Amino acid sequence: MAARTAYDLLKERFAQISHLGHAASILNVDAQVAMAAGSAADRTGQVIAIASASHMLITAPDVAQWLDAAEKDKASLPADDQRNLELMRRNWVHVNALSKELAEEVARIESEGEHLHVEHKKNGDWVKMRDWYKHSFDTARAIGTAKMAKLGVATPYEALLDSFSPGLTSARIDAEFAKLQAHLPAIIREAVARQQALPTPLPLKSYPVEQQVELCRTLALAMGFDTNRGVISVIDGHPSCNGSPDDIRFTLGCTPENFLEAVYSTIHEAGHGIYDQNRPAAWRYQPAGEHLGMNVHESQSRIMEVQACHTPAFFRFLEQAARKAFNEPTEPSLSAANLERLINTAQPSFIRTEADEVTYAVHVMLRYRIEKAMVNGDMTIDELPKAWNDGLKDMLGITPPHAGQGHMQDVHWPCGLVGYFPAYTLGDMGAAQLYAAATKARPEITAELEKGNFTPLRTWLNDNVHSKGSLLPSDEMFRQATGEALNADYLLNHLSQRYLGRPFVAAAAAAPDNKHKFG
Amino acid sequence: MAARTAYDLLKERFAQISHLGHAASILNVDAQVAMAAGSAADRTGQVIAIASASHMLITAPDVAQWLDAAEKDKASLPADDQRNLELMRRNWVHVNALSKELAEEVARIESEGEHLHVEHKKNGDWVKMRDWYKHSFDTARAIGTAKMAKLGVATPYEALLDSFSPGLTSARIDAEFAKLQAHLPAIIREAVARQQALPTPLPLKSYPVEQQVELCRTLALAMGFDTNRGVISVIDGHPSCNGSPDDIRFTLGCTPENFLEAVYSTIHEAGHGIYDQNRPAAWRYQPAGEHLGMNVHESQSRIMEVQACHTPAFFRFLEQAARKAFNEPTEPSLSAANLERLINTAQPSFIRTEADEVTYAVHVMLRYRIEKAMVNGDMTIDELPKAWNDGLKDMLGITPPHAGQGHMQDVHWPCGLVGYFPAYTLGDMGAAQLYAAATKARPEITAELEKGNFTPLRTWLNDNVHSKGSLLPSDEMFRQATGEALNADYLLNHLSQRYLGRPFVAAAAAAPDNKHKFG
Repeated sequence: MAARTAYDLLKERFAQISHLGHAASILNVDAQVAMAAGSAADRTGQVIAIASASHMLITAPDVAQWLDAAEKDKASLPADDQRNLELMRRNWVHVNALSKELAEEVARIESEGEHLHVEHKKNGDWVKMRDWYKHSFDTARAIGTAKMAKLGVATPYEALLDSFSPGLTSARIDAEFAKLQAHLPAIIREAVARQQALPTPLPLKSYPVEQQVELCRTLALAMGFDTNRGVISVIDGHPSCNGSPDDIRFTLGCTPENFLEAVYSTIHEAGHGIYDQNRPAAWRYQPAGEHLGMNVHESQSRIMEVQACHTPAFFRFLEQAARKAFNEPTEPSLSAANLERLINTAQPSFIRTEADEVTYAVHVMLRYRIEKAMVNGDMTIDELPKAWNDGLKDMLGITPPHAGQGHMQDVHWPCGLVGYFPAYTLGDMGAAQLYAAATKARPEITAELEKGNFTPLRTWLNDNVHSKGSLLPSDEMFRQATGEALNADYLLNHLSQRYLGRPFVAAAAAAPDNKHKFG
Repeated sequence: MAARTAYDLLKERFAQISHLGHAASILNVDAQVAMAAGSAADRTGQVIAIASASHMLITAPDVAQWLDAAEKDKASLPADDQRNLELMRRNWVHVNALSKELAEEVARIESEGEHLHVEHKKNGDWVKMRDWYKHSFDTARAIGTAKMAKLGVATPYEALLDSFSPGLTSARIDAEFAKLQAHLPAIIREAVARQQALPTPLPLKSYPVEQQVELCRTLALAMGFDTNRGVISVIDGHPSCNGSPDDIRFTLGCTPENFLEAVYSTIHEAGHGIYDQNRPAAWRYQPAGEHLGMNVHESQSRIMEVQACHTPAFFRFLEQAARKAFNEPTEPSLSAANLERLINTAQPSFIRTEADEVTYAVHVMLRYRIEKAMVNGDMTIDELPKAWNDGLKDMLGITPPHAGQGHMQDVHWPCGLVGYFPAYTLGDMGAAQLYAAATKARPEITAELEKGNFTPLRTWLNDNVHSKGSLLPSDEMFRQATGEALNADYLLNHLSQRYLGRPFVAAAAAAPDNKHKFG
C-alpha cells in the first residue's frame, strides 16, 4: 500500500470532523424530540465537548502542515479534489480564527439559547432575554472581528455571512435586496387589494393529528424523501431538518384545526431533506460533498414549498390526498380552489414562519438590516426592539402585540445564528430562478404534480443542484443550472405572475419606492 | 484568579471525555429507539469519530504531563481528590495501552456488532456470524494483551475484567463462583422438585401495550426514578439503560400476552437508572463520580428486581397496581399468590435474560468460563458452540434448539463486550448481600413495599451505595455497607431461604458437587 499523502490524511480528518458535526446534529434533534426537561445541562455539556473536540481536531498543528503540503502538490490532484482541498482551507481559516474558548461559547449559546428562547418567547419577556441577546450579538461580533482579517473582508458581519451563505457578499445581497425593496411594496399593495376583492375562503375543519401525520407521510414519500434513511417526528416546537445525509430527521408540528400547517412544514422540511439525501455519495463526509450554504439549502425547501406546491396542479393533488386521509369525499373546504385561496394569500402578518410568500421577504430584509447593524456596531441592544417595530410598521403597517410575536419570535439570534437570515430570501430568489429553469427544461414538471408525481422536478434538481454538492461555487452552480448568477428579478416575476397575473418588467413596474431603505 | 493547577486541567479534560462518552451513549439509544435502518453506517461513523476524539483527548502528551505533575503534588489534595486522581491514572493506563486504531476498532465492533447480532440471531445463523465472533474475540485478546503489562496482571482476560468489574480479580471470582458451583446444583435440583409439587399457576390474560406502559411508568415512579431527568421508551429489542446521570434513558419491550416481562424489565432498568441518577452530584463527570463497575451496577438492578420485587409484600402491591391499570378488579390470575407462582420459579431454560434467579448463575458462569478460555487462548472459535451446548447440558440438562437460543443469544460477544459477563452473577451476589444489610438496618423495608413505598430501601441505597460513586473501591464500599467484602454465601442463603424455605449453612449443605468445574 502506498504511503498516505497529506491530502489523504486531510480527508480522514475532515471526515471525522463531519461525523462529529452530524453527531451533534442528532443530539440536537434528540433534545427536541425525546429528551426530558431536566437533562438540558448534560446535553449542553455534550455538544460543547463535541465542538471543542472538533475545534482541536482542525486546529491541530498537523492539519496546518498537511494543508501546506497538499497545496504545494495541488496540481497533481483531480479537479474535484482541488476544489475539496480549497474548501478544506476555507473551513480551516474559519475555525482557526476562533480560540477554543470562543468555539465552545458558540456551542453553549446554541444549546442554552434554545431553551431560554422557548421559555421566554411565549410571554415575550424581553427583560429576561435582553442580556442574553446582547451576549449573543457580542459573541457574534467577536467572532466576525476575529475572522475579518483572515478572510480578507471589511466588516465583522461580512465574515459571519460567509459561514452561512458562502460566496454571497453583503454588497451582492444589498444590490439584490434593493430590487426587492424597490418593487415589492407596490406588488404587496396590489396583491393585498386583489385578495380583498376575492370571496372569503371556507374555513377548514379540525382533523386528528394521526390522520394529519399519515397525510404528511404520504406527501413526503411522493416527493421522494427516503424514509429508510430518515425519520419524521411530530413535536410541539418549530419544525426543522437535521442529521446526516443518510440519517435525515425532520420534525413537524400538527395543530388539529389547521392541517395545512403540517402539510407545508412537511413539504418545506422534506425539500431540505431531499437535498441532503441526494448530495454526491462519492463526496460524503467531505467539504466538497457538503451543501452549498444555507441560501441554496433554503432554495431547495422553498422550490418545493412555494414554487411547486402553491400551483393549481398541486392543489388538485392535495385535495385528493386530503379527502382520502380524512375520509371526506365531499367536504367543500377541501376543494382545490378553496385550498388555493387559503394558501396563496397576501396579507401583512407578524410571524415570519407563517408569513405568505409575498410579504415574507419584508421580515427577512428587516432581520438582515438589524443584525448587520448590531454586528457592525451601528445599533445597540436597547435600540433593537424599536428598530423591529418601526421597520414592520413602516413596511407592512402593523405592530406586534408583544415581543414574542415581534423581535423575539425567532430562535436564530438567541442561539447565536447571526448572519443566517438573508439566506431565507436568497433561498426564495434561488427557488424562483431554479423553478423557471427546470420548467423550461422539462415543461411537464408542473402538470405532473397533479398526479403527485414529483419525479420530473426532483430528478432535475438531483442533476443540477443536489449531485453537485459543493463541487461548484454557488454562483457557478446557478449559472450552469439557469444560465445566470442569482438574480432577484425571478422572484419578482414569480410573485407578479402568481399574485398580479402578469409578468414583472422592471422598467414597466411602478417607480421604485424610495421611502424604505434596506441593506 | 489563581493559575489553574495540573489537577484542575485534568478535571476539565476528564469532564470533556465524560461528556463525549455520554454523547455516544445517547446516540446508541437513538439508534435503538428512533433511527431508520438505512442510517447505520452514518451512526457507526459518528460513534467511531467520538471514540477517536476521546482517545486523542486522553492520550495527548499534556495529559501525561499533568498526571505526573499532579501526582507529585498529590499529598496537598483532599482525600476524595486523591482518589479521583488515582482513578484518572487508572483510566489513562487503560486507554493509553491501546493504539488509536484499536480504540476505533472497539467502537466499530460495538456499533456494527449490534446490527449483525440482531440480523442473524433470530435464525441462529452461526455460519454468518462465526468470523465476526472470531474477530471480536481476537480484538479482545489484542486489547487484553496490550493492557497486561501496563496493569501488572498475568493474563489478557484479567486485563479485560478490570475494565468492567475493577478490583475483582479472576482469582476472587473463581473462589466465589466455586462456592456457587459447589452448592447451586443441589439447590436447583431441590427447588425444581419443590416447584413441580406445587399447583400450576393460572396463565395471564393479554393486555394492551399502552396499559402495560402506564403500569410500568407507575412502578418506575414509585421506585423513585426521576422522569424529569430521564425517558422511558418502548422498543422491540433488548431492554437497556443508557445516557448520562441527568439524562437516563431506559428502554423496555412489551408483549401483550405477558405483562410481567415489561414489569420486571422496568424494575431492573429503573434500578440501574436510580443508581446513575443518584451518584454524587459534586463529582459529576469525574472518575470519582462514576459507577463502581458493572458488578455494582448490576447489584443495583437486581436488588430491585429479585431481592425487593420477588417478595410477597411486593406481589401484593403489584396485584393492586395491575388490577387498576388493566381495570380487572377480580381476575384470578392477577392475585398476588398467582403472580408469585409465575415469577418465583426454578426451571432450567435456554435464555439467560429470561432465566429465573435460581438457574441464572449457571448461564453466567458458563459464559465466564468460555470467554476466559477464548481470550487466554485456551479455546478456539470452532470449539465455542460445543462448549456452550455441553456446559448447558451438563449443568441444566437441556440443549438449545438452535444457536440463536444458545451461544448466539447475547449481544455482548458480537459487540466486543468480553469480560462483562461475570458482573451479572457478581451483581446477584452483591444484591443479596446489600439487601441483607439494608433490611437488618431498616427492618421496615420489605413490609413497606406492600404499599409501593420504596423510600426506605432507596434511601438506604442512596446513602450506602449511590452517593459513594467511585470514591471507595468496591470491596471497601461493601465492607462499609455490609460489614464484609463480596461473599457468595449471601446469594446461596437468599436462594435457599426463598426456594427451599431454610437458611443456607455451607457445612450442613449437601457435599460439594465436584462433577462441574467452572472458573
